[in-house]
Amino acid sequence: MIVATALVLLMTIPGLALFYAGMVRSKNVLSVMMQCFAITGLVTVLWVIYGYSLVFDTTGMEKGVVNFHSFIGGFGKAMLAGVTADSLSYSIPESVFVTFQMTFAIIAPALIVGAFAERMKFSALLVFIALWFTFSYAPIAHMVWGGDGGLMWDWGVLDFAGGTVVHINAGVAGLVAALVLGKRNGYPTTAMPPHNLGYTLIGASLLWVGWFGFNAGSAVAANGTAGMAMLVTQIATAAAALGWMSVEWLLHRKPSVLGIASGAVAGLVAITPASGTAGPIGALVIGLIAGVLCFFTATTVKRKFGYDDSLDVFGVHAVGGIIGAILTGAFAAPAFGGFGTVTDIGAQLWIQCKGVAVTLIYTATMTWLILKFVGLVIGLRADADDEAQGLDLALHNERGYHL
Amino acid sequence: MIVATALVLLMTIPGLALFYAGMVRSKNVLSVMMQCFAITGLVTVLWVIYGYSLVFDTTGMEKGVVNFHSFIGGFGKAMLAGVTADSLSYSIPESVFVTFQMTFAIIAPALIVGAFAERMKFSALLVFIALWFTFSYAPIAHMVWGGDGGLMWDWGVLDFAGGTVVHINAGVAGLVAALVLGKRNGYPTTAMPPHNLGYTLIGASLLWVGWFGFNAGSAVAANGTAGMAMLVTQIATAAAALGWMSVEWLLHRKPSVLGIASGAVAGLVAITPASGTAGPIGALVIGLIAGVLCFFTATTVKRKFGYDDSLDVFGVHAVGGIIGAILTGAFAAPAFGGFGTVTDIGAQLWIQCKGVAVTLIYTATMTWLILKFVGLVIGLRADADDEAQGLDLALHNERGYHL
Amino acid sequence: MIVATALVLLMTIPGLALFYAGMVRSKNVLSVMMQCFAITGLVTVLWVIYGYSLVFDTTGMEKGVVNFHSFIGGFGKAMLAGVTADSLSYSIPESVFVTFQMTFAIIAPALIVGAFAERMKFSALLVFIALWFTFSYAPIAHMVWGGDGGLMWDWGVLDFAGGTVVHINAGVAGLVAALVLGKRNGYPTTAMPPHNLGYTLIGASLLWVGWFGFNAGSAVAANGTAGMAMLVTQIATAAAALGWMSVEWLLHRKPSVLGIASGAVAGLVAITPASGTAGPIGALVIGLIAGVLCFFTATTVKRKFGYDDSLDVFGVHAVGGIIGAILTGAFAAPAFGGFGTVTDIGAQLWIQCKGVAVTLIYTATMTWLILKFVGLVIGLRADADDEAQGLDLALHNERGYHL
Repeated sequence: MIVATALVLLMTIPGLALFYAGMVRSKNVLSVMMQCFAITGLVTVLWVIYGYSLVFDTTGMEKGVVNFHSFIGGFGKAMLAGVTADSLSYSIPESVFVTFQMTFAIIAPALIVGAFAERMKFSALLVFIALWFTFSYAPIAHMVWGGDGGLMWDWGVLDFAGGTVVHINAGVAGLVAALVLGKRNGYPTTAMPPHNLGYTLIGASLLWVGWFGFNAGSAVAANGTAGMAMLVTQIATAAAALGWMSVEWLLHRKPSVLGIASGAVAGLVAITPASGTAGPIGALVIGLIAGVLCFFTATTVKRKFGYDDSLDVFGVHAVGGIIGAILTGAFAAPAFGGFGTVTDIGAQLWIQCKGVAVTLIYTATMTWLILKFVGLVIGLRADADDEAQGLDLALHNERGYHL
Repeated sequence: MIVATALVLLMTIPGLALFYAGMVRSKNVLSVMMQCFAITGLVTVLWVIYGYSLVFDTTGMEKGVVNFHSFIGGFGKAMLAGVTADSLSYSIPESVFVTFQMTFAIIAPALIVGAFAERMKFSALLVFIALWFTFSYAPIAHMVWGGDGGLMWDWGVLDFAGGTVVHINAGVAGLVAALVLGKRNGYPTTAMPPHNLGYTLIGASLLWVGWFGFNAGSAVAANGTAGMAMLVTQIATAAAALGWMSVEWLLHRKPSVLGIASGAVAGLVAITPASGTAGPIGALVIGLIAGVLCFFTATTVKRKFGYDDSLDVFGVHAVGGIIGAILTGAFAAPAFGGFGTVTDIGAQLWIQCKGVAVTLIYTATMTWLILKFVGLVIGLRADADDEAQGLDLALHNERGYHL
Repeated sequence: MIVATALVLLMTIPGLALFYAGMVRSKNVLSVMMQCFAITGLVTVLWVIYGYSLVFDTTGMEKGVVNFHSFIGGFGKAMLAGVTADSLSYSIPESVFVTFQMTFAIIAPALIVGAFAERMKFSALLVFIALWFTFSYAPIAHMVWGGDGGLMWDWGVLDFAGGTVVHINAGVAGLVAALVLGKRNGYPTTAMPPHNLGYTLIGASLLWVGWFGFNAGSAVAANGTAGMAMLVTQIATAAAALGWMSVEWLLHRKPSVLGIASGAVAGLVAITPASGTAGPIGALVIGLIAGVLCFFTATTVKRKFGYDDSLDVFGVHAVGGIIGAILTGAFAAPAFGGFGTVTDIGAQLWIQCKGVAVTLIYTATMTWLILKFVGLVIGLRADADDEAQGLDLALHNERGYHL
């Protein structure tokens, strides 16, 4: 089952590429797709060389003891040492586990692309992603999922399928990147309408499909937990899509494709950490809250503060992720229809908040440092001329459409 | 396996959205996608609240006894009461069964969208779908799949994966809707060519892929029946695509993308009820007949009667569904290469025809009543101005393309 | 698991259609999609009638004995005789095996389409494919995968998922077809830029996803071998994409979407024969070599020799396939990190080279004969007027876009 799951979840890469590509201007359609695709290649190779090891090598870890390896793994599994056709991990073939976990490591940095779309140099992007993967993704993933002795694992942070590891991590990095790179030239005075919302909606659909892989697959077995994860994922996503659509309809008088698609993604994000423990009613509530709050972040809050998070990575992934991570503490409890082992809801909420706070602060700091470093060494932004011409032609010597 | 299947079949929603979106004019591309997407959200939530219960709650049902609950389930499973991570249904996790069945409940109303594309108000659509799901989908699904005591279940109607429940149901509703809403302004004098047939072909491909989920998944196990369902689905679809293409080539001198794609969908529809019982030769015959007859319905018959079933929901789904439902009675028999238990073909054919007739009459009546009601309360059609401008801009304040 | 796998791999057909469609001019976008789709239908039907039998009927075969049936199977399984819901093949339901193998038989001829895109008559295409499937695909598949007594099977040729059977076979046929049909009018003096590289990149992504089905599915079980096949497929593809991109960046100064997408496909092709035996490091090396060498074939070599292999079927599939087939001989050895049983690397390399040579010579000859025959009987090329107008309108009476 995990094989199938891992296969399906790879739908999320083309899904994300389409989702983002539809939202940019046609002169940059290829650049965002290319970024998603190149990140897939780059992170795959880094994952093999040292990434898997930094996250899942347990050398030096001890339950309840905070030491260096509570924060980051060692190099014992570098070059996938010890991974054979027969080795197991959580009683599935380790090769499957390696691949499944790799997809989280790919999607997280790929999500950030939306925050600085239409203005970053391709070379700077590759260097930034390599560093961010190493110094932000790997440590957070290790702290949360690295097993006994991992910092947040030992605290008891619940993150079934990547609320903190993937979404808060990437969403916060996106906000920092949007701030460090600055606004696109012309923003917000020039209209920059999405050039192909059909792509965006189809992309959202593929993300939806692929996400079942993340959430159901995180049960690491074909059992009732996987089934329930699939069900609650569907419910939360539907609720969030309807929630965003309804608020937009009420306030802006017309429901939009961009809105319902963004709402769906917000729901996918918010249910992610809760998907192994929440029940159907919890999923409805989580989805509805995420749809409404992410709407306000991506519209009112963004306008008020004036940052140019081009495709709402912060508004959807960080905010949705935080909502989900915290509510997981409540809806995992059987008292709230959950299937987790949480009995003291207050205590669990506190643990969840600690997890969110650590991720948020660590990622924000690290992303800022990395971007400043890359900016100094090779520069972050494309030339103003290149930006005006469009990155497709300027950086890749291609046009998106010859119709 | 059912998990994987359920995942894959969700390809059918973006598949359908693309299939339809390619066939409308570019000014309405977003509106049909939005309708498919919003229906996915809406039906998911209704399914959780009461839909699953109306179809699968068995309270009050008794084998061979016709009573109120032969027609519709109760509210015993409302809000998914009793569905836990451990509960089973047909020996798979009930959460999986709930999700799998949900996808049928989503695709059926989404199919209808094609019949009144380019002219229905979005608000009216949502109300219509909510009512149609409740009063047409849920009863038919309960009668056929609700178990001992269900009307058509007790008759012995064979409908492996939704020929009556999904396709005849939706296809007939489409015809009624096309008639009640009336033709698009300008139809048939103004040419309304499909705006992006690449979308339509890719959409058909995704439908094809996802459909394996419906048909193989309906075995509710990873066994030889699932395998054979997959195989016959592939065969019938191929035969129908070639059949439609050949007739069109002969009669209209050129084979078209629209034709081969429509033929493939006709084959998928026709094999659906037979997919658990027919053998390879039966599949070839069913596919070929469906490809040819659906071609004539969608061209000659539609032109002759002058109704504006915009994207041939009736011609493909109702006609294909009826062909499949009836032929299932023959090709389920080992005498005709089938793997079913049918021995008296004549008797089974009679049962199948009764099933088709009940579905047809019930759905037509109910759809007509619902549409008249919605029309009275909030009106069905978009303003003529909005229709001329295109629903994307008029109703959703967006344009499909900024190229 | 095999069910799920077979489902997923069907993503490769729409993937290939999109990949190719994006690379042609907009006046031919439908024609290449239509060709892929029609081939799917045609080969499915032929597979049922006699194809499966020609490849997998073992009548008359005997281990170590070279006779007529070392080259081609008999008709014992024609019309899928003996395939029931209960029959098994390699301990999975035979219906699943039939479908899984069918997808290889579909993708191989569909790949060739790219070599003569934009200029072949649709009727000639169908006849050519029917003959090529029968006289080139079936024999090669039988010789390699037909079991004891098959020519190359007995030699011990390692081809886990179709390096020789699918990729060298199709790639060489593509080169021959490009030569026999001649260049597109205007090539290479007129610029023929890809009309929609977004399609191409999404198509490559879907191919990538679907390919896991081919490679992991070829383990014919949900085990560690399948998992490792998935992992090495991901690694080689990533390495090849980065390899092609890097060389292009160095030599042409800008990395392109067309390049990274082509590189990914080259990696998928090259790892295909090795995917059941190579380890992660072998995959890295195979991918990197394939990315670089296929780049040079598709650019320098093609320009130098002047043939018009429109979408680089030879450059990617034949060259990538040959690289993979030969390197399989080395990287299957535990000494090179492999999981195969190869101990005498030199001997295995020699076997692999023999397999490549036989496939190459047989396919080239047979394809040439078939094309000459079809050319004589009905002619191969579209009229010059039709070619100028575009095949979409000329042959299918449709336009790709009405935007």
